[in-house]
Amino acid sequence: MNNPTAAMIVIGDEILSGRTRDSNMHYLAKELVKIGVDLQEVRIVSDEERVIIFAVNELKKKFNYVFTSGGIGPTHDDITADSIAKAFDVSIGVRVDAKRLLNKYYQKSGVVLNESRLRMARIPQGAYLIENPISGAPGFQIENVYVMAGVPSIFQAMVNFSLKNITGGSPIISQSVTINLPEGEVAKKLKQLAAKHPEVSFGSYPFLKDGNLGTDIVIRINDEEKINRLTKKLKSLFKIKVGVEYE
Amino acid sequence: MNNPTAAMIVIGDEILSGRTRDSNMHYLAKELVKIGVDLQEVRIVSDEERVIIFAVNELKKKFNYVFTSGGIGPTHDDITADSIAKAFDVSIGVRVDAKRLLNKYYQKSGVVLNESRLRMARIPQGAYLIENPISGAPGFQIENVYVMAGVPSIFQAMVNFSLKNITGGSPIISQSVTINLPEGEVAKKLKQLAAKHPEVSFGSYPFLKDGNLGTDIVIRINDEEKINRLTKKLKSLFKIKVGVEYE
Repeated sequence: MNNPTAAMIVIGDEILSGRTRDSNMHYLAKELVKIGVDLQEVRIVSDEERVIIFAVNELKKKFNYVFTSGGIGPTHDDITADSIAKAFDVSIGVRVDAKRLLNKYYQKSGVVLNESRLRMARIPQGAYLIENPISGAPGFQIENVYVMAGVPSIFQAMVNFSLKNITGGSPIISQSVTINLPEGEVAKKLKQLAAKHPEVSFGSYPFLKDGNLGTDIVIRINDEEKINRLTKKLKSLFKIKVGVEYE
Repeated sequence: MNNPTAAMIVIGDEILSGRTRDSNMHYLAKELVKIGVDLQEVRIVSDEERVIIFAVNELKKKFNYVFTSGGIGPTHDDITADSIAKAFDVSIGVRVDAKRLLNKYYQKSGVVLNESRLRMARIPQGAYLIENPISGAPGFQIENVYVMAGVPSIFQAMVNFSLKNITGGSPIISQSVTINLPEGEVAKKLKQLAAKHPEVSFGSYPFLKDGNLGTDIVIRINDEEKINRLTKKLKSLFKIKVGVEYE
């Protein structure tokens, strides 16, 4: 499995304080699976420049792609663009192409391009713009870092735009088998099966339903024939009702 | 605001692959706010030993408390306890006190303490046990790191147990003001207000509702008198309907 790798940085005090629940991570995770990019780490960090810079610098070296969400709006607490410019040690200022995008969008919708909104045309030098069909103000890509909005519908549109230009690998196929036994009853046979197939990922996820513990086994590999065979094997091992799910 | 700080590590391939949505982070965030502990970073990492060790080592130095969820069950992919032992460079093995807990719980519920389940009594040297009233197998605390289960109901019970023994700070109060204007119309006045009160956190969170952009302003500080005054000020600045929410 040599798929390209990715990390995500969620910039969001509002998530760390428990005020809102993030949904962008889940959306990105599902989209990356489809194109065979392996999301390997997500960090949720506070709206502080030094924290954002640290995370960007650490993750852009470790992973093929880094996606960020949040902090690119017009208010005083939107510091992502400036932090990214510092992380890459490039200048930042109002860019003509970004301003043109804002102008075009705002004229159409009768919105005034005031001083606050003009902040959203501040783009680090050398970055490419990411389209925002929802509210005009663009995201941007600099090297392997994709900087996108926090509002879910805008984030999703920006992800769709960005992923079109990303080279993925082989989409990972997963199948899920639900076993109505606690993990402690499943572990031994599962371990033996996993040991026979070191190239396959066997995840075991316990759940509690109506007071009973059960186990979801998720088999993941980019080989459909093999995954079908192993799913059948699991079925026969546990002689249980099987639910199959493709991601 | 010199409250103690915290980070969380979610150990979960199933979240990174988009299969499930994490809910433990949101629960922990809300509980920490109540006792005045500042959750400053969350990392979601894959089920790999070196990755877990790296995150634990980085975060236990940076923050007063670190909470982990996931990977302490009986299956082959449950590698959290061993990874934590390595991160702290201590030995790990079946501990008598943990085995006694399992025995006690399983005898009551008629479950067999088989070899797989016995893995859950493997606890790093020097760690304290964290009670699990739901399914018996304990979590543990080693220095400032609290290692807990991934199943939400068990995680929550372990958080409740752990937080009883943690010294927090002053609970942060937050009030939220919903303004039916896009951020671009709110930014200037908000910036001026925030500049006058540098000791207060003013977060601005755009939202999209029925096709219209609006803004939630969240004021956060541990001073009830001040927060009430600033909420009134915001109301009068924007002459708008106000929703107040206490966390």
